[in-house]
Amino acid sequence: MHKAGSSSNLGPGGLDIAQAFFKPIQNTCPPSPTKRHTKISVIGVGNVGMAIAQTILTQDLADELALVDAKPDRLQGEMLDLQHAAAFLPRTKILASVDYSVTAGSDLCIVTAGARQLPGESRLNLLQRNVALFSAVVPPLARYSPESILLIVSNPVDVLTYVAWKLSGFPSNRVIGSGTNLDSSRFRFLIADHLDVNAQDVQAYIVGEHGDTSVALWSSISVGGVPVLSFLERQQIAYEKETLEKIHKEVVESAYEVISLKGCTSWAIGYSVANLARTILRDQRRVHPVSVLAKGFYDMDGGEVFLSLPAQLGRNGVMGVANVHLTDEEADRLRNSAKAILEVQNQLDISCS
Amino acid sequence: MHKAGSSSNLGPGGLDIAQAFFKPIQNTCPPSPTKRHTKISVIGVGNVGMAIAQTILTQDLADELALVDAKPDRLQGEMLDLQHAAAFLPRTKILASVDYSVTAGSDLCIVTAGARQLPGESRLNLLQRNVALFSAVVPPLARYSPESILLIVSNPVDVLTYVAWKLSGFPSNRVIGSGTNLDSSRFRFLIADHLDVNAQDVQAYIVGEHGDTSVALWSSISVGGVPVLSFLERQQIAYEKETLEKIHKEVVESAYEVISLKGCTSWAIGYSVANLARTILRDQRRVHPVSVLAKGFYDMDGGEVFLSLPAQLGRNGVMGVANVHLTDEEADRLRNSAKAILEVQNQLDISCS
Amino acid sequence: MHKAGSSSNLGPGGLDIAQAFFKPIQNTCPPSPTKRHTKISVIGVGNVGMAIAQTILTQDLADELALVDAKPDRLQGEMLDLQHAAAFLPRTKILASVDYSVTAGSDLCIVTAGARQLPGESRLNLLQRNVALFSAVVPPLARYSPESILLIVSNPVDVLTYVAWKLSGFPSNRVIGSGTNLDSSRFRFLIADHLDVNAQDVQAYIVGEHGDTSVALWSSISVGGVPVLSFLERQQIAYEKETLEKIHKEVVESAYEVISLKGCTSWAIGYSVANLARTILRDQRRVHPVSVLAKGFYDMDGGEVFLSLPAQLGRNGVMGVANVHLTDEEADRLRNSAKAILEVQNQLDISCS
Amino acid sequence: MHKAGSSSNLGPGGLDIAQAFFKPIQNTCPPSPTKRHTKISVIGVGNVGMAIAQTILTQDLADELALVDAKPDRLQGEMLDLQHAAAFLPRTKILASVDYSVTAGSDLCIVTAGARQLPGESRLNLLQRNVALFSAVVPPLARYSPESILLIVSNPVDVLTYVAWKLSGFPSNRVIGSGTNLDSSRFRFLIADHLDVNAQDVQAYIVGEHGDTSVALWSSISVGGVPVLSFLERQQIAYEKETLEKIHKEVVESAYEVISLKGCTSWAIGYSVANLARTILRDQRRVHPVSVLAKGFYDMDGGEVFLSLPAQLGRNGVMGVANVHLTDEEADRLRNSAKAILEVQNQLDISCS
Repeated sequence: MHKAGSSSNLGPGGLDIAQAFFKPIQNTCPPSPTKRHTKISVIGVGNVGMAIAQTILTQDLADELALVDAKPDRLQGEMLDLQHAAAFLPRTKILASVDYSVTAGSDLCIVTAGARQLPGESRLNLLQRNVALFSAVVPPLARYSPESILLIVSNPVDVLTYVAWKLSGFPSNRVIGSGTNLDSSRFRFLIADHLDVNAQDVQAYIVGEHGDTSVALWSSISVGGVPVLSFLERQQIAYEKETLEKIHKEVVESAYEVISLKGCTSWAIGYSVANLARTILRDQRRVHPVSVLAKGFYDMDGGEVFLSLPAQLGRNGVMGVANVHLTDEEADRLRNSAKAILEVQNQLDISCS
Repeated sequence: MHKAGSSSNLGPGGLDIAQAFFKPIQNTCPPSPTKRHTKISVIGVGNVGMAIAQTILTQDLADELALVDAKPDRLQGEMLDLQHAAAFLPRTKILASVDYSVTAGSDLCIVTAGARQLPGESRLNLLQRNVALFSAVVPPLARYSPESILLIVSNPVDVLTYVAWKLSGFPSNRVIGSGTNLDSSRFRFLIADHLDVNAQDVQAYIVGEHGDTSVALWSSISVGGVPVLSFLERQQIAYEKETLEKIHKEVVESAYEVISLKGCTSWAIGYSVANLARTILRDQRRVHPVSVLAKGFYDMDGGEVFLSLPAQLGRNGVMGVANVHLTDEEADRLRNSAKAILEVQNQLDISCS
Repeated sequence: MHKAGSSSNLGPGGLDIAQAFFKPIQNTCPPSPTKRHTKISVIGVGNVGMAIAQTILTQDLADELALVDAKPDRLQGEMLDLQHAAAFLPRTKILASVDYSVTAGSDLCIVTAGARQLPGESRLNLLQRNVALFSAVVPPLARYSPESILLIVSNPVDVLTYVAWKLSGFPSNRVIGSGTNLDSSRFRFLIADHLDVNAQDVQAYIVGEHGDTSVALWSSISVGGVPVLSFLERQQIAYEKETLEKIHKEVVESAYEVISLKGCTSWAIGYSVANLARTILRDQRRVHPVSVLAKGFYDMDGGEVFLSLPAQLGRNGVMGVANVHLTDEEADRLRNSAKAILEVQNQLDISCS
Repeated sequence: MHKAGSSSNLGPGGLDIAQAFFKPIQNTCPPSPTKRHTKISVIGVGNVGMAIAQTILTQDLADELALVDAKPDRLQGEMLDLQHAAAFLPRTKILASVDYSVTAGSDLCIVTAGARQLPGESRLNLLQRNVALFSAVVPPLARYSPESILLIVSNPVDVLTYVAWKLSGFPSNRVIGSGTNLDSSRFRFLIADHLDVNAQDVQAYIVGEHGDTSVALWSSISVGGVPVLSFLERQQIAYEKETLEKIHKEVVESAYEVISLKGCTSWAIGYSVANLARTILRDQRRVHPVSVLAKGFYDMDGGEVFLSLPAQLGRNGVMGVANVHLTDEEADRLRNSAKAILEVQNQLDISCS
């Protein structure tokens, strides 16, 4: 796949004319191979992948952006559509190919590819097909960018992050799932909306599985530095546990709601993943609830499971996990969430294709 | 349509709890009605409308963004998807409704709505249906935001900008079509790619109709301050007129190419229109090739036709048109472009619904 | 004082040539007087005022920036220096004058002007001179921008914010002192540095007087959602109260340290005040520890005193104050801080000049 | 010089507490040495150096910023002042030292250090002292960052860029002087102000020596794509050569004017140099009039002289020089400018200290 509707179309005179315009400097040494620039690859150019790619471009997070997809037409169309915006953007090189060699030397590989559920297909069967898909995707990514960080967005995200870890052979700090980062953002939005404050002043996590068994950490929510539950207690304000559960339920269902209304989700996950990319590539060491290998944290020593915990992220991937205090009930729920993921995982057959 | 999955869902306690958290200041006067904030409305939440809306959000161009569409489900889904990103964005209020009252007080109304061609439908019939659509869209926009600027993106953009002007009753400086702004950007990208320079260093306009009769102003192209054609002449570098025509043809066809590959265009038009929004709302007085009432410019006095000319834009809309020098051939082509638009226009029946 | 080295210098031909270049659109109506744009005035062009002005420009927070100072040369020099950067900045109109009429219609007035301590001068005498200065500054600001928000940066900031409130006749929600906003930022930086996390993940407030009696709210510090003190207790990690006091002391002394090293402070206060300007003008409703009329909050009903509390700010100024829980010791200290300010205040003689 | 008021002040418990908060991930491999990040060093923390450093920080152009100056107090004060703003900025590591080792591994070294003219000192004597200063500055920079690009801002910039080239032993594409980049920006501002257009729509270069012999390239000025001089001729608009000369003179004198009014220049040079840093580090390949080795361009083959020409800049420094057409008069002036620089240069004695 060629770079843009490129020079070759414009006749052989291109280079000569360019050199006539800009007389090249004579004693230029060859560019040093150590020159640093940032490269991000996005695998899958569906609505999610493209919302991520476009937000990364607008926010100027990379010097080079590579897109990979199995469908060459859609891929070429998306690449051209982004390239046509060149005059409105800082200089980012945009590449696209069905071949993974285009991703070589990436700092961050974001996987959004996934199989679609067939009519009547069981969840397990769908998952097994996704595992097959990942065994075609992850090994070449790992081969072409052995130092990169893998960020998995495809669903079910926790299991597939585990699968990507196994298939890549990467150390666990370099394999991350987008997990409940967006759920937590939706959670903060709903609380902020409820209290008429800025979502950026709300501290709140949803952890565990990205899905039905996710756990809202009510005990650690704070707004503008005020811990919510202990505040309400001190003020002797009654609150119905049901109200809290309702907010959590609304978060869990919000993705389904958007999908049922517009057929997919795209913008929010795009911003959410671009935000993770910034924290990682700029080494910001911020805390995000993302899917990480849980072994050893929060007394979860039963098996190799990935689920979302408040992790500190930087240029080297996962740096550590914050010791948020859980109530007994929250700890129980988290362990149940882990168990639910493990059960699915144990039925899988993972091997490189 | 409600605002987010909003407070009402969370039980009657919302307000009380909010006030317990934040003790309101006592002697606050009612907010002054003259408080300034910027509101943009986008009509039509298809791929183009949403790419525009999302780019406007990411670039933080408005305090309030209102979406309108005839399809309530898609509309609600798009609104929620954007709202869920609140934690990653500056505070922009996002509203959506099938009712135009949601657009009240807009500074800028961007119209992307358009009818889709039916199988076997003639171009004229399609256009007449779009005129019917515009007579349901433009009058309420003009009524709810009588001071706003109308920016038309729907195609055929030049004729529909004329239609919007007629239907709105606005002075012509406040009715603008996106015209060849994106074509010119693609043109600059291809020239920059050809010469390996930054697209932002290329000055180049495509003017006239956004479509097959558009005119590339070869005589006024410059790169890094070097006028291209006179440079080539001075250097006695031969260039084939065909090569130039090929680049222009590639621009004209690039939208079709993207549509044939991915089924629509979205990202580039999103950036392009957000760029116009910034110039207008921040009163930047930059020059953009956009569709304006051409009467009185470049000796085009034959009729009321909108087509793209290099116009200086600011907070009050169109400020003037740059006197770019045209060769005789370019001037001829521009007049032909105007004639082509007028012929279509004369067959239309415009009246408010 | 003229606008830039402006047109008048370039001979009478300026306007004619401009109109030849850009043929103005004919039927343009006069610009509507309701067109919205954002104007910020900065009073005092010393190091603090200019760091604020430049950060506001770089962050593109205003359409118009007016500078006022009593020294016309320095003022003109600073204005020209900013204007020469026009090609690198979005279009912001930059004005400067010794006359307050240049501030007319401001949305936000930032006062950094202050008298310098004379050798051997008592603190009270200096303050009284600053009160005299304010009675020449604040009334004209209030007259030329009766709807604006006053943001006081001059020191001693709490007393002078009270003075500005009295002199302006504004409701208390529209008079704010920068207070301990920067102290709190320094506090978060030191804690973040100590724990190797991102300062943006640290929630921590210093409240009360901006100065020696300021109060560090240790009980409400949290990092990445983990409340620090209760965490340490649970983990049975001993911490020395002295260590905490040392960090607080370092914050209080850091401004003095910077002043003793470089002769003034500028950059950090510039970012800090630009940050407040963004929250206010973009109506972000974020919580900042700034100096507000404390009456009625935290049981402080003794007198009219301004000191820093975690206040929610928006387009209308102060919206409310967060009910952060104070330990008894913290509450005591806060009351002492208020008493210290009141004692100074009671010795002042405030009247308009 | 230590990093911030750092951990060591806070007692030995720092690290332990940090690890209690964030349980580190176990199987983290050591960070790869090839991890890419961007480092900029600024030599000299006077008004110019600090305006550059602060603008680079605000615009988020580097992951690491190192400051060097001979005065440890001022240096420490400036570093602390920037660090205190950490909560308002993306994570940039800020270092400072009197020792050049702090600059190791820089991608870009910006030199603003310079000697001040002593009363009665001849220009040549001052220059010779600056050469002595540079022989203490440039060799350690080149040693600690052998792959970096040197950007010289100190005056007289053209001669000192030549001196830096000689002292560094770098190929000429990696030694650049800020030259007339800011003059050209001022020039564009004055033309834009004159014509009431956006400075970003004005193409105009001042080339040659940064100083009294600089050359305004009137023949290649264009506004919004309209070449100015040929436009005026076609429209038979008379313009006085004197008017043009007056604008050029105003540019040349504007730096002196700002210095006479406020004692120094800072903001505009800060934005201008940050703009160059962005073009270089983001490999934007934009054209800037900066001081480059002129040999071989515009028929200047007489000697090794650096002066400003419209150069295309990228990650590897100078890529080439645009072939802007000069009138005979402009070419003559440019050669005179070169001669003026050479004459000074020939009197210098350059050797490493």
